[in-house]
Amino acid sequence: MKKNMIGIFTKNRIETFSDGIFAIIVTLLVLEIKVPVIETPGSSTQLIESLIKISPKFISWIISFFTVCVIWVNHHRLFKMFRLISHGIFWLNAFLLLWISFIPFPTAMIGDYPDNVFAAAFYGIIMSLMALAFSLMRIYVVRNRSILESAVNFDEFRQGTVYSIIFGPVLYIVGSCISLVHPYLSFGVYAFIAIYFIFPHATKDIE
Amino acid sequence: MKKNMIGIFTKNRIETFSDGIFAIIVTLLVLEIKVPVIETPGSSTQLIESLIKISPKFISWIISFFTVCVIWVNHHRLFKMFRLISHGIFWLNAFLLLWISFIPFPTAMIGDYPDNVFAAAFYGIIMSLMALAFSLMRIYVVRNRSILESAVNFDEFRQGTVYSIIFGPVLYIVGSCISLVHPYLSFGVYAFIAIYFIFPHATKDIE
Amino acid sequence: MKKNMIGIFTKNRIETFSDGIFAIIVTLLVLEIKVPVIETPGSSTQLIESLIKISPKFISWIISFFTVCVIWVNHHRLFKMFRLISHGIFWLNAFLLLWISFIPFPTAMIGDYPDNVFAAAFYGIIMSLMALAFSLMRIYVVRNRSILESAVNFDEFRQGTVYSIIFGPVLYIVGSCISLVHPYLSFGVYAFIAIYFIFPHATKDIE
Amino acid sequence: MKKNMIGIFTKNRIETFSDGIFAIIVTLLVLEIKVPVIETPGSSTQLIESLIKISPKFISWIISFFTVCVIWVNHHRLFKMFRLISHGIFWLNAFLLLWISFIPFPTAMIGDYPDNVFAAAFYGIIMSLMALAFSLMRIYVVRNRSILESAVNFDEFRQGTVYSIIFGPVLYIVGSCISLVHPYLSFGVYAFIAIYFIFPHATKDIE
Repeated sequence: MKKNMIGIFTKNRIETFSDGIFAIIVTLLVLEIKVPVIETPGSSTQLIESLIKISPKFISWIISFFTVCVIWVNHHRLFKMFRLISHGIFWLNAFLLLWISFIPFPTAMIGDYPDNVFAAAFYGIIMSLMALAFSLMRIYVVRNRSILESAVNFDEFRQGTVYSIIFGPVLYIVGSCISLVHPYLSFGVYAFIAIYFIFPHATKDIE
Repeated sequence: MKKNMIGIFTKNRIETFSDGIFAIIVTLLVLEIKVPVIETPGSSTQLIESLIKISPKFISWIISFFTVCVIWVNHHRLFKMFRLISHGIFWLNAFLLLWISFIPFPTAMIGDYPDNVFAAAFYGIIMSLMALAFSLMRIYVVRNRSILESAVNFDEFRQGTVYSIIFGPVLYIVGSCISLVHPYLSFGVYAFIAIYFIFPHATKDIE
Repeated sequence: MKKNMIGIFTKNRIETFSDGIFAIIVTLLVLEIKVPVIETPGSSTQLIESLIKISPKFISWIISFFTVCVIWVNHHRLFKMFRLISHGIFWLNAFLLLWISFIPFPTAMIGDYPDNVFAAAFYGIIMSLMALAFSLMRIYVVRNRSILESAVNFDEFRQGTVYSIIFGPVLYIVGSCISLVHPYLSFGVYAFIAIYFIFPHATKDIE
Repeated sequence: MKKNMIGIFTKNRIETFSDGIFAIIVTLLVLEIKVPVIETPGSSTQLIESLIKISPKFISWIISFFTVCVIWVNHHRLFKMFRLISHGIFWLNAFLLLWISFIPFPTAMIGDYPDNVFAAAFYGIIMSLMALAFSLMRIYVVRNRSILESAVNFDEFRQGTVYSIIFGPVLYIVGSCISLVHPYLSFGVYAFIAIYFIFPHATKDIE
């Protein structure tokens, strides 16, 4: 087998594999919300009341949905800058996908126990690990410049890597610690991170 | 990084991501239907009776299945007219996918409580929000003409946007309100919307 | 918009959508098999016995797994012969996917009630409807020859359509009726149909 | 239909189908971990304790996650060497996917019964069958050289096939038998196999 084929992955298949996982996670999140059981099947009042009771599940679902979309955007952006996929990139990507695929669990947990300090902190810890995987991938690329497309500005990329550490793992850990004051404050931070990345001006800074 | 690469997404990866979500939703819908528990495992009569009892679940599944297929067709048609995917399109698409990924929940709810007025209305409200996301995407494109392929007739597109508001969010809200008369009438409206879009003459008007 | 773009779908996106559904169904089948609950967590004997008790679930899973693979092969073969995807093909394909996405339900049902005559018959009825969707798609193509690639031999295709009716819906209905003699005989027929299509000589006749 | 089109599959669609299954399995693994039910919803201590109690589920999930990633890498590598997909390759691939799609079941079982000898052994048996499917595919290719791309070194490929038998089915059976000494030793072997394949020097030997 040709030497230059060893250790190099087909970028397209890794993107398909990753996109599949993103699509599944985004869809599975809603499966954690079960239709509530009510005593009088025909009563609209009971149904509305039971939905209001599980409203934290809807909020945690929406936060996680947009967070996964933001991760997808960042993933898409990062991979567009790669010329090839090395072994290192593949396994750092797998490490990232590990945490992404885990998201339904902490999401369901804050939906079930919205007032639990640890549940709110745990969500932030997992998201922080996910964001860390992203930053590690960027750091790896900074050290292996040949992975980047020639059109990419290396200094901007290195600068973006620093930003990705601050607005990623660090901010999620801050959100996680704030749960000690009140769990709802943590949700606010998590929602803020997602919203912050949705607007292009923000992501432009990072890119 | 080259300036013209910023803020523009790879159309292909967004289609793969969206198609993945469509495929998963269409498949997950049936998972909400559980095999009924019967007392005498060998009794065909008991099994048939138990299936008839859960028949509303089958009806709601079929309506949602074809509705998702119709959404897929519209999504496919719309994206075929796009020359590029801007940030705005991406997040309006994410907003659309949010409601699409939510469909199994209201579907399961009308399957569980077919005679509940609120369950029938809720289904229509969610579908209306989904259809609204579609219309918003079209309105955004009308205001950002450069997104359209040059082969697309702009006047027809603008006209189609008006139709999409009427036959989308407006009609679903009408269906939702009709539940106050009787929930089954709502199902009729929802089924009608799906069937209406299946026939090409209808979609041709819109396109 | 150019007239020749109306009513024609991108073959690639429909294949991706269909492949997604096939992949999900094949994977979800196993989710219906739950880890049995045993009294003594450390007892190997209890665990083995409990697995033997749910062995019909494993058998129904394997039959359905290979049946879905066979459907995938037939779908792949059929679509390779298409030059374009018309509205008719799209909705007949959606009708096919409806039944394919339903397969986990009858599979779980024969796994739960292996000795129930109606469960065995029901599986065959659903598979028969699925196979009918396939035959309808072929009949539609026979009537709309322009859909076929020019390299395809039309007479062979028409002949294959006749075979597809016999070895598809008809044989599944036969298997369904045989359940009146004994449910296990039906499983034999269903397994036979899957195995028959696995060997190339068989599918060559049909193609 | 042209003779050379019979019995040959589109490599791209089989990769998409397989990638879909890989992505779904990797994601579904985490669904087997349910949020524990605690008595005092607001108690962080109770939540932490309940998570520690289900820690074997997290460990089995991580082992299976990386194992599926390793399988994906091997699958990707193997298919990159194929010039075409014959009927034989397709069905050996289906046989491989059967065991891959089954992985959530033995994973959930060792998560539920970490101290059960049979659960630990069963995991190894299933993985062994999966690895056997891989080796069978390689043996088939050794006997049908025309499937390989001309750039592939045949002697290296044949040598790699021998290695794949040793480091695949044989090692998993060894891990399975070791459960008779202690189930935890088996987990160690399973984790070792996954880690061994993550590092490129190892896979280079096999390739």
